Amino acid sequence: MKINGKPMRTIWLCEDGWSVEIIDQTRLPHVLETVRLETVQHAAHAIKAMQVRGAPLIGATAAYGVCLALRKDASDEGLDRAINYLAAQRPTAINLRWALNEMQATVRNLPREVRVDAAYARARDISEEDVETCRQIGVHGKKLIEEIAAKKPAGTPVNVLTHCNAGWLATVDWGTATSPIYQAHDAGVALHVFVDETRPRNQGAALTAYELGGHGVPHTIIVDNAGGHLMQTGAVDICIVGTDRTTATGDVANKIGTYLKALAARDNNVPFYVALPHSTIDWTLDDGFAIPIEDRGEDEVLAMQGRMADGSVVTVDIAAPGSPASNPAFDVTPARLVTGFITERGCCPATPEGLLSLYPERGPT
Amino acid sequence: MKINGKPMRTIWLCEDGWSVEIIDQTRLPHVLETVRLETVQHAAHAIKAMQVRGAPLIGATAAYGVCLALRKDASDEGLDRAINYLAAQRPTAINLRWALNEMQATVRNLPREVRVDAAYARARDISEEDVETCRQIGVHGKKLIEEIAAKKPAGTPVNVLTHCNAGWLATVDWGTATSPIYQAHDAGVALHVFVDETRPRNQGAALTAYELGGHGVPHTIIVDNAGGHLMQTGAVDICIVGTDRTTATGDVANKIGTYLKALAARDNNVPFYVALPHSTIDWTLDDGFAIPIEDRGEDEVLAMQGRMADGSVVTVDIAAPGSPASNPAFDVTPARLVTGFITERGCCPATPEGLLSLYPERGPT
Repeated sequence: MKINGKPMRTIWLCEDGWSVEIIDQTRLPHVLETVRLETVQHAAHAIKAMQVRGAPLIGATAAYGVCLALRKDASDEGLDRAINYLAAQRPTAINLRWALNEMQATVRNLPREVRVDAAYARARDISEEDVETCRQIGVHGKKLIEEIAAKKPAGTPVNVLTHCNAGWLATVDWGTATSPIYQAHDAGVALHVFVDETRPRNQGAALTAYELGGHGVPHTIIVDNAGGHLMQTGAVDICIVGTDRTTATGDVANKIGTYLKALAARDNNVPFYVALPHSTIDWTLDDGFAIPIEDRGEDEVLAMQGRMADGSVVTVDIAAPGSPASNPAFDVTPARLVTGFITERGCCPATPEGLLSLYPERGPT
Repeated sequence: MKINGKPMRTIWLCEDGWSVEIIDQTRLPHVLETVRLETVQHAAHAIKAMQVRGAPLIGATAAYGVCLALRKDASDEGLDRAINYLAAQRPTAINLRWALNEMQATVRNLPREVRVDAAYARARDISEEDVETCRQIGVHGKKLIEEIAAKKPAGTPVNVLTHCNAGWLATVDWGTATSPIYQAHDAGVALHVFVDETRPRNQGAALTAYELGGHGVPHTIIVDNAGGHLMQTGAVDICIVGTDRTTATGDVANKIGTYLKALAARDNNVPFYVALPHSTIDWTLDDGFAIPIEDRGEDEVLAMQGRMADGSVVTVDIAAPGSPASNPAFDVTPARLVTGFITERGCCPATPEGLLSLYPERGPT
């Protein structure tokens, strides 16, 4: 998608053909800065420190991380070490595991001397597949928005609420939850997005608002506390969020606070959709509460980064001095609260049968 | 309660016998600073700018504001002007109206020359009554905490979740939601409080954590998004919040986001209590959605105040430049989601019958 009118992606191979460049998302929205990844340590740091975040983008970055590791050591041991190292950086997002498994399957049975080239080819494919997958999510999700628009008076915008950033900055391009929004907007459907701030890291206010603004989509930032009130007062037509891992039974792990919005949507008969690529489905799990939930540091709660009037970016303490904080990064929305999934293959109910109807190859044979 | 071991209140009459001093809560937790109110304009500004906040404290400040106005003009017109002016500063809290009605009833039929003294006497009484009312709320609410403690293994803390600041800083002393916490803690009951940060103004992280820390109560700050996850995982035994206005039917207007926590409490069978003095009950309303909800400025969402490493307090922009924000300050939790009320007269169900059982004088005669 575009930043200041210029098409960009979140991750790309450099002209040297081996190093990888990313947008440093910890600097957004204040500074647009890119970082070059030259080692697997760089890739791991980018994932851990959330220079890249969002389940699909974490997967793509991990794939390139394996490539960077293999350049140094293409042995079986080197491969295993890189994969275990990268997998340990974030525990919740399943795409990280998925991408690493893909990379392992690609290179494991190849002779050492062709492993690097094969790895780069697969990492490029993972990135390109992500772009196409997200585009397809938008094709299917756009229909949901159009159906709502058709029932509203002409010109009345469809009000979408989203949480965190499941936007193009969380993927390679298009985004998951935002892909239907971008495609409906580009098709001329009047819409407006309520953007949950998404404490503690403010991915909504900092990233989703940034990318919607960059693409010209009308939007309003709200605090995470406000969505329930907006749904009670009829201001929200549909919720669309992303996911970091979804079970085969339809339970959804996503950014902390998603569950609260799903409860409010159910209480007010607002449809609540989760947009996801196939790579976020964990077919081995049938209970969302078995998904490991990452605990992050208390500094993310107790301090905040912001821009001073002179343009400098600083971190300030915002809480009572000496008070501790707890920082679980994700929560689980039970399938019973999810109206449906939007995948690259179409929409389905948040049930085992719904998922198998789109992915029959995962069913009993 | 205590700050740094020294007993304080939020508002008090100065030694000159007429001016009023308050803690400037917009400066907390970074700086403990008091402000002297010498005119009705000072009092109105303190309410509007939230130097004082919390329904009971707003009422006490408004009462003294009438005193300050009458010192300048004790005529009927002066009284009416002061009351209308003060009432317009915050629309949601019913205590503001209640206190102003009390002041009007006190002085309206008195000769002009005794109005000022009578007003000060009533304002003092309103403050002292608030202290006693909050103390009684604690006496009754403490029993709920003790009942939970009795069912837990000895020494296991009772985990209380609270939203915003319904603490002593929101009243003259004790607080509403915190009064049971302080009294249980002082009685030796092991407890721990999860403090919702409470965006956008961070009254939880800034004020509730500050006052709990000052009194030595174990607590942990969490982002507003986290409470649902904590309730899902069994980490919360009871929610206790305050209210800015409660209808005769038991609907509760409170700080934005309260409704989301009430939904999560219901979904996880966690008892959800609202602590309130009689002055927050609006006996004229039977529908919470008829309560006016204050919309505040977008700056509270888009910028944040914090303390730099050098101790200076600055305001920083935290959102994508150019993105607008919406800032509704309260939401309505329907009575069906409230387990019960804790009042100065005891506990009751959140129903018309429940409230009338404690306040029979409000029933049909």
